[in-house]
Amino acid sequence: MPIAFQDFYPDRFSHCYGCGKSNPQGHHLKSYWDGEETIARFTPGPQFSGGVPNHVYGGLIASLFDCHGNGSAAGFAHRAQDREMGQGEPMRFVTASLKVDFLRPTPMGVELVVRAKLLTLEGRKVRMGMTLSAGAVTCATSEMLAIQLKD
Amino acid sequence: MPIAFQDFYPDRFSHCYGCGKSNPQGHHLKSYWDGEETIARFTPGPQFSGGVPNHVYGGLIASLFDCHGNGSAAGFAHRAQDREMGQGEPMRFVTASLKVDFLRPTPMGVELVVRAKLLTLEGRKVRMGMTLSAGAVTCATSEMLAIQLKD
Repeated sequence: MPIAFQDFYPDRFSHCYGCGKSNPQGHHLKSYWDGEETIARFTPGPQFSGGVPNHVYGGLIASLFDCHGNGSAAGFAHRAQDREMGQGEPMRFVTASLKVDFLRPTPMGVELVVRAKLLTLEGRKVRMGMTLSAGAVTCATSEMLAIQLKD
Repeated sequence: MPIAFQDFYPDRFSHCYGCGKSNPQGHHLKSYWDGEETIARFTPGPQFSGGVPNHVYGGLIASLFDCHGNGSAAGFAHRAQDREMGQGEPMRFVTASLKVDFLRPTPMGVELVVRAKLLTLEGRKVRMGMTLSAGAVTCATSEMLAIQLKD
């Protein structure tokens, strides 16, 4: 089993509720390579309902894009330097801008698949396009700009 | 004390993790009028950390905008018909598109204030601009398009 992007984050950056290995109460989203794209899988618990009980609430969908996007940005930035995460100095990203388009209700009780592809990588800025799907149905799309932390 | 926009939602729409009165585990965000704008206040618990422990995670910020935006859209749409929520047939909104710009880290342990102002209201579509502030500092801004459900 490969190690998730988020599990390479230095300990001081590992507390995120969405994806940090050091947050005991969080979602622990984990992102991996899938060829040239990245992928994360997540099945929301029943408490993360939208207004209507059988639909996922929008905030969780935005959260999944946000955490998968930042992990993926680190993956893409490392590969652009011909190295994998865990090799050499780690690069950690934060969200500058996140846009989510909700195409249709996202069902509860099924595994959701989040995918990211690289759009542009310029200096410390990584721009990605993402999809969130339930089975064969794309429920939401996102575009995100992540920026590498300097420290 | 006025009744929050979200507490006027019909019972079948009241299960949202972010703001539903019928979700026992959720955030229970509550939005109100503040003159021509709307306002919600929320102090995240310590588990909702970002990667760095003293900053709020991005997904929660997006969630607050999403739930405050949908509640506010309902408020704006009712006022545009010269009535308040709770008077006449309820109008319920969902997010079509949400864009969040993260300007700076959002601190933990302080009350966050989310404000929305109406940009345009055309038919079933309500477009709003929002801010999220900690004290005098604006940490994030958002633009959202909400659409009224037809049911």
